Order: sequence, then structure tokens, then C-alpha cells
Amino acid sequence: MAYELYYWPSIQGRGEFVRLTLEEAGAPYEDVARQHGGMPKMMRLLEGAGVTEPPYAPPFLKSGKLLIAQTANILLYLGTRHGLAPKTERGRLFVNQLQLTIADAVAEAHNVHHPIAVGQYYEDQKREAKRAAHHFTRERIPKFLGYFESVLEQSGGPFLLGRRISYADLSLFQLVEGLRHAFPRNMERAEKKLRLIEPLCERVALRPRIADYLASDRRLPFSNQGIFRQYPELDG
Amino acid sequence: MAYELYYWPSIQGRGEFVRLTLEEAGAPYEDVARQHGGMPKMMRLLEGAGVTEPPYAPPFLKSGKLLIAQTANILLYLGTRHGLAPKTERGRLFVNQLQLTIADAVAEAHNVHHPIAVGQYYEDQKREAKRAAHHFTRERIPKFLGYFESVLEQSGGPFLLGRRISYADLSLFQLVEGLRHAFPRNMERAEKKLRLIEPLCERVALRPRIADYLASDRRLPFSNQGIFRQYPELDG
Repeated sequence: MAYELYYWPSIQGRGEFVRLTLEEAGAPYEDVARQHGGMPKMMRLLEGAGVTEPPYAPPFLKSGKLLIAQTANILLYLGTRHGLAPKTERGRLFVNQLQLTIADAVAEAHNVHHPIAVGQYYEDQKREAKRAAHHFTRERIPKFLGYFESVLEQSGGPFLLGRRISYADLSLFQLVEGLRHAFPRNMERAEKKLRLIEPLCERVALRPRIADYLASDRRLPFSNQGIFRQYPELDG
Repeated sequence: MAYELYYWPSIQGRGEFVRLTLEEAGAPYEDVARQHGGMPKMMRLLEGAGVTEPPYAPPFLKSGKLLIAQTANILLYLGTRHGLAPKTERGRLFVNQLQLTIADAVAEAHNVHHPIAVGQYYEDQKREAKRAAHHFTRERIPKFLGYFESVLEQSGGPFLLGRRISYADLSLFQLVEGLRHAFPRNMERAEKKLRLIEPLCERVALRPRIADYLASDRRLPFSNQGIFRQYPELDG
């Protein structure tokens, strides 16, 4: 039976981390809210009607009778089922830890353009966003990427856990792609100091199912409605 | 063998979620960085020397040969071992989902006093913090707490998963305590609309081991170095 993925239909957002894992797994899924009549279906589940384990927000995944929310939680579930997480407890804990660290970086990247309030327009917090971006690009991007670089050094590469790919690699690829889109100038500078992350991202992009996905219309483009937004004034 | 908890020694912070679960479990643990010579030990592990699975930041937990970081990940591990998470996959996924939603609320609560940059002083982002606090207290607190209220309605209470306590209940207690400390006026207003969260928090506080812990000097007080800070100007 196909999985049902529920996420906002017009952006990559946090749903993209789930899509990448589903695609690499070759798992059949429906991207429900992008189908005709899908949005009302998602909203009904969000309102919690008849839902035993209600989600706080998209993305969430329906797998048989299970309804699973929170990106890292969905990936923990899918990774274990589709060979994209280690079989050992130790390995599973570490891949979850890496994913949660990626999630922290993603949340901070979103805060850059919405430092005051997620519910207000970017234009109403543009000055503050510029200050936030300065700090994020100078301090936080190098710290996060430096951490993942050191994990790759420690594992021996080419992937975060060593020789086998995991869902955290797909997520790191998406984080790096997003940062490159949002902060091209700063990322060019930051990546000069990195040796192992770029080859990892290339390897991910070249995996047959991922390459196929990225070239398809299932892959939405980055946009200024999503997490990684291209505002040149924030990439000073 | 006792667990070793590593966290900044002078604040509750994210370490407190781990402490509460260890205390409720009655699990022996050392709060390493609060002991003599503990800080250098924590810093060496953070620098990654000889560490196969390096942490990005505290808290992290040493359990035998395992080194586990990221609060929600540590709790998933401890909860499963100490009967503070369900035995079924479905239940474990849901408790993890709830914990990750609490973590999102905690991160937003921290952003309120540091909207521009975590690495800069509150005093240098005070005006922006006031604007962020307005939005957080009016929009976000009611939304998050309303969600947990609806989970309690759905489960039938008294706990988030129903009749049995889980680590997510301990974490929700800490979140609510923290919000009450930081935003007493706004929380008084918000809690008027809630029926089930307050009794849950009371139950948690009265559990023998938790009551014992809260009265002990192992429980650090809230402070303006932590996540939940009492700046009256942010509680308008």
C-alpha cells in the first residue's frame, strides 16, 4: 500500500526531507495535498477529527493505520523500514541525533528571514532579518557545517555513518542545497574550508533514484515561500 | 552503572528535560559538569577527541559505551529503557512526536529573548525581543498549549498518552513551568482556557521522585541565563 504524505502543496519546506527519503527508498507514495481534493483532506486530519494521534503541523505521513508527524520522527520510521538507517540501536540513535541537528540548522535558517514572528511578513521584519542573517552566515553556518565535516572525518566517509548511506545524508544534501540557494556568496566562502561535504552532496545527487527525482516535476523548485529564500540583501 | 549526564552546570536549560526523566526513572546518574573537574571532561568530549559519535552540543548522555546527544534522542533512549515510553512502535512514535513538538516550543521560547542572534547579548536585541514576545505570547503559546490540551482530550487523560505517564508528560510539565516563570501574566490568561494541562502538571509535580527532586538542590532554579527568562518587559 502506498504511503500518504501530507504537506503544503507549493513548497519544498520540511516535507522535502521526507520526499527525499521516500524517493531514495523507491517507496510508493502519494503527495496528497498536491492532488485534486487533497488540501481539504489534509486540513481535516490537522483539525484532528477522528485522529488518535493528532499532528501539530505538516508534514505527516500515513502508513496503514499509523499517522506519524514531526519530520525527524517520520524519517526514523521510514529509515528503519527501508534500509536507510543502521540496524543497531547505537547506529539508529546516532542517525536520529544527526537528523535532529540538521533540523536545528533548518529552524535557524528559517528564523533568519522571520526573526520576529513566523506569522508576520518578511517585509515587516526586514531590518531585523539583515542583522540575523549577518550572524547566521558568519557564525552559525560555519559551525553547523564544520560539525558535519568532522562527523565525516570521524566516519571515514563518504557518508555520515561511513560506507552506507542513511537518511541523514539525504537531509544534509537538502540543507546544503538550501543554504546554497539562500546564501550563495556566503556558502561559496564557507565551502572553501570544507573538504568532505561537497563530495557527499554530489554522491547523493547522482544516486539514480534521487537524480531521477530531482529532474522530475515531483521536485518543487526553491521559492520565497519556503525555508530557504533568496533575498540578496541577506547574503552580504 | 550510573549514567553520566553532560550539561552546562549552572542552568536548567535543555538538560533539565533529561534530568526529570532520570529522576522519575529513579536511575542513578552523575551530573558530570556540576562535579569538580567535570567541565574540562565535558569540553574534551565536545571537542570530539576519541569520540566515534560526536555531539554537536550539550546535553549528552553516556550510557556504558554509548554517547547520545540531542534531548529528544536521549529521552527516546531512556524512556524505552525505563518504562517511560510505550512498548509498541505506534506508542513510541507518538511520544517522540510529542517530545519534538515540545522541543519546537522550547526553541521558540528561547528565540523570544534572542531573536537576532544567540551569540549576542539580550540587551543588544531588546527592542526586537519585545516585538517577538508580543507575537509569541499572543499567538504561539495559545497554539502550542491548545494542541497539548487537545491531545489530552483525545487520550482521555490524565496523561498525554492516557493512563500511563511518559517522558513527554515530564517535558510538558517543564515547558509549562518555564512559560509560567517567563510570562506569568500571559500564562495566567492562557491557562484560563485550559482544563487538562494544569492537573497534568500538578500530578507530575506530586510524583514522589519528582517532588523529592524539585525540593532538592539537584534542581537548579530558573535563571536569566537559561531558556525561560523573567524579563517583565517581555510579558506585556
